[in-house]
Amino acid sequence: MERYFEEELKELKEKILYMGDIAGTMIDLAIASLKKKKDDFIDSIYQKEKEVNKLHIEIDEMCLRIIALRQPIAIDLRFIMAAVKINSDLERIGDQAVNIAENSSKLHEISDLKSMPDLDNMANISQKMLQDSLKAFINRDVELARTVVLTDDKVDDLKSKIFNDLKDVMRNDTSKVLSSLDFILIARNLERIADHATNIAEDVIFMVLGKDIRHHMEKQQ
Amino acid sequence: MERYFEEELKELKEKILYMGDIAGTMIDLAIASLKKKKDDFIDSIYQKEKEVNKLHIEIDEMCLRIIALRQPIAIDLRFIMAAVKINSDLERIGDQAVNIAENSSKLHEISDLKSMPDLDNMANISQKMLQDSLKAFINRDVELARTVVLTDDKVDDLKSKIFNDLKDVMRNDTSKVLSSLDFILIARNLERIADHATNIAEDVIFMVLGKDIRHHMEKQQ
Repeated sequence: MERYFEEELKELKEKILYMGDIAGTMIDLAIASLKKKKDDFIDSIYQKEKEVNKLHIEIDEMCLRIIALRQPIAIDLRFIMAAVKINSDLERIGDQAVNIAENSSKLHEISDLKSMPDLDNMANISQKMLQDSLKAFINRDVELARTVVLTDDKVDDLKSKIFNDLKDVMRNDTSKVLSSLDFILIARNLERIADHATNIAEDVIFMVLGKDIRHHMEKQQ
Repeated sequence: MERYFEEELKELKEKILYMGDIAGTMIDLAIASLKKKKDDFIDSIYQKEKEVNKLHIEIDEMCLRIIALRQPIAIDLRFIMAAVKINSDLERIGDQAVNIAENSSKLHEISDLKSMPDLDNMANISQKMLQDSLKAFINRDVELARTVVLTDDKVDDLKSKIFNDLKDVMRNDTSKVLSSLDFILIARNLERIADHATNIAEDVIFMVLGKDIRHHMEKQQ
């Protein structure tokens, strides 16, 4: 039985990684659709969303089955509980990518808002946080997970800067109100992706150390 | 042991309900701070947030302990897994209430945006969805849970209406751009509270029926 159990845990790990890959691709596609200002990517994103939703259900069922059949304890149990939560976070990251793509596809006047280096930066950092949080999960790497948690502040700062910049634009030029609002909502979506990556990293730390750091190293509001 | 197990499940149920009560109060306080346009409520909300965060950790630990010690199966195991997820959703509902209160406290020009019946309506429906989803959890009431899931569409429609109304305001009067934006972000927070209540309701349905309805009765985007 021990051998089956190891194989099941390996399969669970691989499924989570696979789901994480798809979620990462969805973020890339969402950002591409934002930059190219075309709807070409929307269909691909909806396709990926379906895959993510299917995995979401499969992984939950797998976790339940493993717990019921193998009755794991200690680190193994914490690993499975982390998988349950990471599963939810990945599914919601997919939702945020869909939101970004949908917001991008209806972007109104483009004008000089076309390029927003801060938004690109925010997208890159959030994407890296997701990748690193999953790497930390696989390698049980507490240090990497901590880095992810701390990086979240950077994303929040960028979001505040984007909000302030766009508020100025909106106040000074009504013709840019709607496109600014869309960018604000996209920045908000990216912030949420970073939040989910942070949740994953916190779950990894709890999984490895058996110690809950959530609400202890919380950012200053 | 059976008796201890029953008692532990009862205690878990009570803790979730208690946390749900606090989250519900936080929504009320957030809406009150929005209407009264005063910061009086901010301190109470931060205080409640601390309680919610403490419960978040306690409930997770309790769930792990029960699974490890009692090795539950079938409905009992699904009950505990539902509790783990509901715990996360309640904590995030608390976060959204904090966001609303913070957005309210910095509301800029108030003018005729003071009263927004649609926003009140959205707040009332989201609050009821939370209460009903928890009632469904406690009573294992699938029908009530289904009602919650279906009500989410109403919240989404209201949000779209609010967005469109406020976009018109913003386009026509730059002096109202910032306050409109704050209301848009608050509507977004309320939408997320309704989403979390929907997640809870879906978890209840899975818990009772052992059947995953997520991504099957999904709303049309």
